[in-house]
Amino acid sequence: MIAANSSTSVAPDGAEYPLPSTTEREAHFAAISARAAGRLVVVVQGLGFVGSAVAAAVAAARDAEGRPSYFVIGVDQPTPGAFWKIGKLNAGLAPIASPDAEFDRLVAEGVSVGNLCATADERAYELAEVIIVDVHLDVIDRAVESAADIQINVAGLEAAIRIVGQRMRADALVLVETTVPFGACERVILPVLREERLRRGLPETPALAHAYERVMPGPRYIASIRKFWRTFSGIDAVSAQRARAFLSSFIDTEAFPLRQLDDPVASEMAKILENSYRAANIAFIHEWTLLAERAGVNLWAVVDSIRVRQGTHDNMRYPGFGVGGYCLTKDSLLAQWSAAHLFNDDHLLGVTLEALRINHRMPLHTFDLLRELAGGDLRGKRVLVCGVSYLPDVGDTRHSPTEIFYDALIGAGANVVVHDPCVRTWAERPQAQLTEDLAAALGETDAVVLAVPHSEYRKLPTTAFPASLLIVDASNVFDDLAAKALHDAGHRLLGVGKGHWRKRGFHS
Amino acid sequence: MIAANSSTSVAPDGAEYPLPSTTEREAHFAAISARAAGRLVVVVQGLGFVGSAVAAAVAAARDAEGRPSYFVIGVDQPTPGAFWKIGKLNAGLAPIASPDAEFDRLVAEGVSVGNLCATADERAYELAEVIIVDVHLDVIDRAVESAADIQINVAGLEAAIRIVGQRMRADALVLVETTVPFGACERVILPVLREERLRRGLPETPALAHAYERVMPGPRYIASIRKFWRTFSGIDAVSAQRARAFLSSFIDTEAFPLRQLDDPVASEMAKILENSYRAANIAFIHEWTLLAERAGVNLWAVVDSIRVRQGTHDNMRYPGFGVGGYCLTKDSLLAQWSAAHLFNDDHLLGVTLEALRINHRMPLHTFDLLRELAGGDLRGKRVLVCGVSYLPDVGDTRHSPTEIFYDALIGAGANVVVHDPCVRTWAERPQAQLTEDLAAALGETDAVVLAVPHSEYRKLPTTAFPASLLIVDASNVFDDLAAKALHDAGHRLLGVGKGHWRKRGFHS
Repeated sequence: MIAANSSTSVAPDGAEYPLPSTTEREAHFAAISARAAGRLVVVVQGLGFVGSAVAAAVAAARDAEGRPSYFVIGVDQPTPGAFWKIGKLNAGLAPIASPDAEFDRLVAEGVSVGNLCATADERAYELAEVIIVDVHLDVIDRAVESAADIQINVAGLEAAIRIVGQRMRADALVLVETTVPFGACERVILPVLREERLRRGLPETPALAHAYERVMPGPRYIASIRKFWRTFSGIDAVSAQRARAFLSSFIDTEAFPLRQLDDPVASEMAKILENSYRAANIAFIHEWTLLAERAGVNLWAVVDSIRVRQGTHDNMRYPGFGVGGYCLTKDSLLAQWSAAHLFNDDHLLGVTLEALRINHRMPLHTFDLLRELAGGDLRGKRVLVCGVSYLPDVGDTRHSPTEIFYDALIGAGANVVVHDPCVRTWAERPQAQLTEDLAAALGETDAVVLAVPHSEYRKLPTTAFPASLLIVDASNVFDDLAAKALHDAGHRLLGVGKGHWRKRGFHS
Repeated sequence: MIAANSSTSVAPDGAEYPLPSTTEREAHFAAISARAAGRLVVVVQGLGFVGSAVAAAVAAARDAEGRPSYFVIGVDQPTPGAFWKIGKLNAGLAPIASPDAEFDRLVAEGVSVGNLCATADERAYELAEVIIVDVHLDVIDRAVESAADIQINVAGLEAAIRIVGQRMRADALVLVETTVPFGACERVILPVLREERLRRGLPETPALAHAYERVMPGPRYIASIRKFWRTFSGIDAVSAQRARAFLSSFIDTEAFPLRQLDDPVASEMAKILENSYRAANIAFIHEWTLLAERAGVNLWAVVDSIRVRQGTHDNMRYPGFGVGGYCLTKDSLLAQWSAAHLFNDDHLLGVTLEALRINHRMPLHTFDLLRELAGGDLRGKRVLVCGVSYLPDVGDTRHSPTEIFYDALIGAGANVVVHDPCVRTWAERPQAQLTEDLAAALGETDAVVLAVPHSEYRKLPTTAFPASLLIVDASNVFDDLAAKALHDAGHRLLGVGKGHWRKRGFHS
């Protein structure tokens, strides 16, 4: 979001939050500081997708007597791009729009009970028993083709950690949740903390632990923190022990026992490996999607038939439109960067990186199908793209494959309208024509692409489609009966992974 | 096994079976033919690893009154290399050595009850209601680097099918179980059958179905046929219906309902995809194995920590020595061959084929570790390799990774002794020095490689290793305590995926 002016921060929903003056910020922090006195303070650095949910989850922790275990302070920056998160949270509102009502409830409750607040004042770190690092660490260009070109914003991470080092109490625990290149805690973060602590005359080595999050958007957003598996490690036994105690205080570790690994390198690698595995499994099936379409095979049914093999094959991915989200589109790049920059290792993650490249190109396959239906030329064609987020029934548009698809359509000269029942504004493509009236849009288009299998699309009767459209089903929205009905009604259609439709002539 | 002379067939266990004269064969077949009169006859073409077990399983089928449903005839060739399978089966002995006692029992029972026998006489096909094709279809060179170099013994398959076409009854069902390139049933097998049937004046198109097996060596060999998932398809509705009825007669389809796919192309692709997926997942983790070792990470523990995620990550593979067996080392090549030769598709299965290449080279990583321990030179070094089969506690040596490892050791000038508690003869490397005395071998070697995690190796106390050996643990045979004890006792060791051992200095 672009701020209306440089003294206001505008949230994605349009709400405006004036940036505080120095005096206002200091007064606000003085009030926080007074309320925090005598309490166990947890500071969360970064109120993004992970940080804001973690802050809410930690604030919800209760001791044996039912009292809040912690006083939680979220810290973000006093900038037009970030301050609205502080403003929202202090107003008792969730900074991230989510279908999980529990998130809204926990934020409202924390603010009303009085143990959850946010500030842009860095002095918050001085109050903290535990500092959770949830800042972003992004890859500069996720579409890089060569391993040597991978660049990471390490300076940004170092700057964030330096502030922690300058302010932290001698005995505070720093708990890193940010997904980092493996080795980062010991070789990037620890040196910065040591440097600043040495300068301050504190014992050089802090308590430092790593515990990666598995936060998922959607209806189980908060549950993905409190009721899910968590792996952690410390740079030493004391750090690990403190991390275990802290994590156990807000995670259901009876149902999901903590997993401890030897050191942060191991747990950092685990996070990246976990996501790289998923990304590789998706890319693998995309190779076979192309093969199946050319051989006239219904790969959806084939995958279904294989997934009966529990424990070995039941996680096989289905064909699809593409891969989105913050993690799966970049984490493998962090691993390759680690090898080269932190371990002086020239080993190439060939299959892992090729998988990322395949996933990045995946939406262009749907583009190819549409172009084929249009006789090779999309110039001037009206195209309705159904689905902007990267998950069904969730409004998360971060690194959505629809971005790549949309750009290809625009590049080909198509007139593009996009629709998504879960998305009101598309922050990544603000210039896109986003409609909320699906029926009207279907009546005014030449082609429609089912990119995301939102429930609303799955429920559409085939009669909702005016005659003679070009239709590409990228996400198994239509079964064979619906496809036949659409074809019989005069539409021409192709489907990702649906070679049998081509064999039956549905495209002509 | 090489026959003592060209008129004798010698089984792997040394038993000799004289090849029958024409008169003997005809007399034997006449007896079979008389016994088969009036019965539903099933002929299994090929008595190899799959065919012999399938024959036993089908012979064990019983009708509602408890009587054998079928008279089963196994057919193989009257050659020194193959006839022993016929000889064994007719003697009531399982042609394949297996730890599954049920297999031995079913063979003995079928022969004694009188509804299971074998012959080399092609006239057997004339008796059959159902002909199950279980012939081998191999890739000429599994180590090919380029997709264009993939060669398959199609002529062998065509010759086998031609015999069926020349002999089959007009109304017999041909059920293909052999793993074939997708498209083979319709584009290779069907044309041959039609040609022969046309020549004989029969209705041109036979009943033809495809139902791929998932037979696994080991203690559940027979159960992997009778109590496991089965996917099938027919070239038309009648063929599919007959395949369904036949499969249901010897598979527990209540517990494992059959999965029907559209056509043989789909089910042929399913089989190859299923195995390619497993192979790709193994190759993926090998990339990370190298990374973890260089970063000092215990990848075994990391994988354990990730596998808690049921349904998405619980099939993640562990690091290891290599991939063996008949299927996983070649099936992806069949897919690539299909695309080029049956579908005129120049699509390259990049990740899938690279995975196969990685798996093929995998044992050379263990070789690298051993060479490193030996200071870079293995000439004249005595090396004991523990494990020849490709699965723990199973004696199956087909395409075992130990082959590649053994060849590398020999190439490097090492003096190699191999041991395997489950392997009495190593058919693929008959020249290898195979010992049965592990304790003695451990006392007379410079280095030992734990290639396969057989129970016998896992039970070895660390004191079983005389001092100052070089040890490479490729299969997590030793935990960290055992590794430390070995190092303290003067051994030097490295482990596949065990970067933490290196970090702790166990190798020096």
